[in-house]
Amino acid sequence: MGQALAERLILNWQPPVGENGELLATAIAKRLDSVEEGASFRNAIRSLMQRALSVTREADFPAWYQAVVDQADLAETSPVRGCMIIKPWGYGVWELIQAALDRRIRETGHENCYFPLFIPLSFLAQEASHVEGFAKEMAVVTHHRLKTIDGKLTVDPDSALEEPLVVRPTSETIIGDAFRRWVNSWRDLPILINQWANVVRWEMRTRMFLRTTEFLWQEGHTAHATQADATEETLKMLEVYRELAEDILAMPVAVGEKPENERFPGAVSTFSIEAMMQDGKALQAGTSHYLGTNFAKAQNIRYQAASGDLEYCHTTSWGVSTRLIGGVIMTHGDDDGLRLPPRIAPHQVVIVPMLREKPEDAAILTYCDDLRNELSGMSAFGAPLRVHLDKKAIKSANKRWDWVRRGTPILLEIGPRDAANGMVTMIRRDRLRDGDKIISTAIPRSGFATTAPDLLVDIQRALFAEAKARLDGNIQTGLTTWEGIAAYFGAATEDDETGAFKGWVRAPWAKPTGSELEAVEAKLKALKLSLRNTPLGQNAPTGTCVFTGRPAVEDILIARAY
Amino acid sequence: MGQALAERLILNWQPPVGENGELLATAIAKRLDSVEEGASFRNAIRSLMQRALSVTREADFPAWYQAVVDQADLAETSPVRGCMIIKPWGYGVWELIQAALDRRIRETGHENCYFPLFIPLSFLAQEASHVEGFAKEMAVVTHHRLKTIDGKLTVDPDSALEEPLVVRPTSETIIGDAFRRWVNSWRDLPILINQWANVVRWEMRTRMFLRTTEFLWQEGHTAHATQADATEETLKMLEVYRELAEDILAMPVAVGEKPENERFPGAVSTFSIEAMMQDGKALQAGTSHYLGTNFAKAQNIRYQAASGDLEYCHTTSWGVSTRLIGGVIMTHGDDDGLRLPPRIAPHQVVIVPMLREKPEDAAILTYCDDLRNELSGMSAFGAPLRVHLDKKAIKSANKRWDWVRRGTPILLEIGPRDAANGMVTMIRRDRLRDGDKIISTAIPRSGFATTAPDLLVDIQRALFAEAKARLDGNIQTGLTTWEGIAAYFGAATEDDETGAFKGWVRAPWAKPTGSELEAVEAKLKALKLSLRNTPLGQNAPTGTCVFTGRPAVEDILIARAY
Repeated sequence: MGQALAERLILNWQPPVGENGELLATAIAKRLDSVEEGASFRNAIRSLMQRALSVTREADFPAWYQAVVDQADLAETSPVRGCMIIKPWGYGVWELIQAALDRRIRETGHENCYFPLFIPLSFLAQEASHVEGFAKEMAVVTHHRLKTIDGKLTVDPDSALEEPLVVRPTSETIIGDAFRRWVNSWRDLPILINQWANVVRWEMRTRMFLRTTEFLWQEGHTAHATQADATEETLKMLEVYRELAEDILAMPVAVGEKPENERFPGAVSTFSIEAMMQDGKALQAGTSHYLGTNFAKAQNIRYQAASGDLEYCHTTSWGVSTRLIGGVIMTHGDDDGLRLPPRIAPHQVVIVPMLREKPEDAAILTYCDDLRNELSGMSAFGAPLRVHLDKKAIKSANKRWDWVRRGTPILLEIGPRDAANGMVTMIRRDRLRDGDKIISTAIPRSGFATTAPDLLVDIQRALFAEAKARLDGNIQTGLTTWEGIAAYFGAATEDDETGAFKGWVRAPWAKPTGSELEAVEAKLKALKLSLRNTPLGQNAPTGTCVFTGRPAVEDILIARAY
Repeated sequence: MGQALAERLILNWQPPVGENGELLATAIAKRLDSVEEGASFRNAIRSLMQRALSVTREADFPAWYQAVVDQADLAETSPVRGCMIIKPWGYGVWELIQAALDRRIRETGHENCYFPLFIPLSFLAQEASHVEGFAKEMAVVTHHRLKTIDGKLTVDPDSALEEPLVVRPTSETIIGDAFRRWVNSWRDLPILINQWANVVRWEMRTRMFLRTTEFLWQEGHTAHATQADATEETLKMLEVYRELAEDILAMPVAVGEKPENERFPGAVSTFSIEAMMQDGKALQAGTSHYLGTNFAKAQNIRYQAASGDLEYCHTTSWGVSTRLIGGVIMTHGDDDGLRLPPRIAPHQVVIVPMLREKPEDAAILTYCDDLRNELSGMSAFGAPLRVHLDKKAIKSANKRWDWVRRGTPILLEIGPRDAANGMVTMIRRDRLRDGDKIISTAIPRSGFATTAPDLLVDIQRALFAEAKARLDGNIQTGLTTWEGIAAYFGAATEDDETGAFKGWVRAPWAKPTGSELEAVEAKLKALKLSLRNTPLGQNAPTGTCVFTGRPAVEDILIARAY
């Protein structure tokens, strides 16, 4: 109780760690009614003072997540409901994710282009199951002019559009309409395009990066002559996403096919990568859809085959979004804030000069400038090192904690003694503490720059290994009955946001469909669980379906999810 | 008349140049009523057949412009009124412009971030002159849900928003709102940010790239402690735009300050770069605004100075958009299509194998593959050469004309004899013809790759020199009276879109303001003219104002404009 109270009180307060904390805690504790409460509160404050963040993962995972978003300077809420402002540090991470993925999208033969933000209402109605799945919450443009009426700026009632326009929630219909014009003969196929864009879905409950009204993403759209070609494309891009998640974001994922009830509206099959967050929930981090000829038939996308016959195209679509940043936070973050894999860290190395407004400051700055220049000349992961020298006019102790919270992989603190003795004092963000103590290592400056690239590679690898061990170690495979699974996860209530960490369950199932699958879904939903995906490359199934008791055809992952 | 008819008839027809043209022209001519008309039509067709494009700049500049957009595969109209689809070749040009500018924006200390697409109506009303200038034609989101009523997808009337949201036409107000939160002390200044985004202005008359309802741009927004700092920033970014236009787009510009009546709504001063199109019109290609404390006062953006006093920030904003691509077309295009400066050409070198479905095709392809690999290993302008081997299954003659129209700087056609003799046959797009004849040069393959980077540099320079000579040679400075200027431009009617090429006039003026300036504006408008800018770095003025007869204070540029 003391812990929760303490955390609630200081959630919006950014303590200069270790400074004034004791005094403040005592002062607040004195004003509490119960002495017992006060003591517990004081202890809680004391323990929190030892962290760079004001709340721990264990105490309140959602509050911890929001604290990282805020205090790592990633994003903030905007005055527009459900829309966020992505701040430079957060946007820098997104740009690095974009660059890594964009390169892979090009290397697999796709070209970028750009389609309109708006979709005519009638387009959305073309593919029946697509509209069914999506047509609920969207931003609708109905007017095109403002007017000052009685001194008040308002919508001009005379400017109503003939046909309302929807702000794109996804672009299958508007891009399919272009495909219809672009495709004539088999020679025009495949069409392989991608766009980086903003999309809007009017979400009721939003959470920074994970579910926002507007978000940024890429959406790939392709058209092919045959089912085989389109399926190959779908799986190829799924593999690109796996590689992006694991090699770039250091976020291990389960790769598989979504069950029927979790398919993209209008798709024949949907595949996903699912990552395990530190609270044991699954995060769907990317999807790739084989759309069959559903959209082609709805939009008349046909080609003349070599035989002369007119055939419908097979289409695909696939996307990842700024949601990935939420995944990075919940995969790598700790109680001191974010930890960024070096490949997506806007600054891989930050140098903090320990200035004290004294004459020796000049020598420290020169030393730091040289160090920065030397490090910037090195390469890691095939690109120049991203090095930042933080000269901002704030206390260097605050700078340390700012960069720790932001998750910069390597932090170098340079004081007068370092400068005088040719040393650097290094903090490795992935190994910040030994118990409560900060690990900071003095290293000779000479030769440090040449070892920095390997250090970054090691940090990238260490973060992946840690997350991979967590994923592998927390998929329960021994449960053979529904009752066992239900008991494993325990009963859930609407309020139980955090719950004990239970990871996922992998269980055999018979791939029920239709109403039988609906019953399974309802059963799971009562425990706030859902079917994630059926991992690719499975061995032949054994045992019986935990839902139907029939012989199993494959294993499926079951989890709570974002 | 025959010419115009011919052009209108074949505007949407892409002739395989020189093939079947004669036959077709004769066939059509025969069906025309008048024999004379038929002969003139045949001659017109014959002349057009010699070009890769179906209309000339001289005959109809706007139609020529649209033909380049279409036939160079840059963009196409979408089913959404006023919105375009930017196709891969056009988007590739935009990505290269983005990369070049983004680097400069970073190097000048700015950070990228992302703000919401939507702006609450009340925000727009905050700055009085801003809303006055902008609050007319915008896309307004009024509802957030669709619903199927009587089997028809429609806007759910129960989903009206409490406050309508405007799709951003520009982001001063939403970003200023964040600045208010971000700025506390002088230590937080300057704030230097930029975003790459889509914006929407509900334009009544649209033209691809030049004026579209939705367009892509970057908008920089900064906050400073003093007027001096903000003015320095405004001019610094203006210089970045000049460098982008001239060094990257090879598009020479006049750099100056806009007169009062052409300022950004809410700005204290607006600066622009203006480029001269081949029809003599001016294109405002980029603007940089010093906003004074206008937005800061409207939005309460204040900082605590070192003295302890609360002061208003001085803010700036600056932007360029996909309109630049329209500028590139009208600066460099010719009657064969687009000519791209190598720095923004998605493919700088295109290799077309002259395949004939014969056994020797294999040797040609091997030869081309080797050539591509060798060229891709070279660098130009500090980046690897962008080389494309066009293996598409269409006739190689068509490929030639496709790439000529798309403006790829160097085209290499490799036939069996080239492959056998170790040669390449090169077409330089900036020097395509000698009279009507195509200049194609046979060059030994050995050593060609090492000369390719210099060739590209030379093409970049040649395109700039040509445009620079046009700009410098077509600014009339000798006119000292309004009557002289009016006579120079001649009377204009609403229909006179093309007119004779007259370039611009540079004339002394007394910088009138208020109603006196309004009268000048009206006078100019009657001749479809406008004030462009007053060039920076002028010598002391001489003579009298052409509008008021008072002593001049500076020179101003007068032109027709896009």
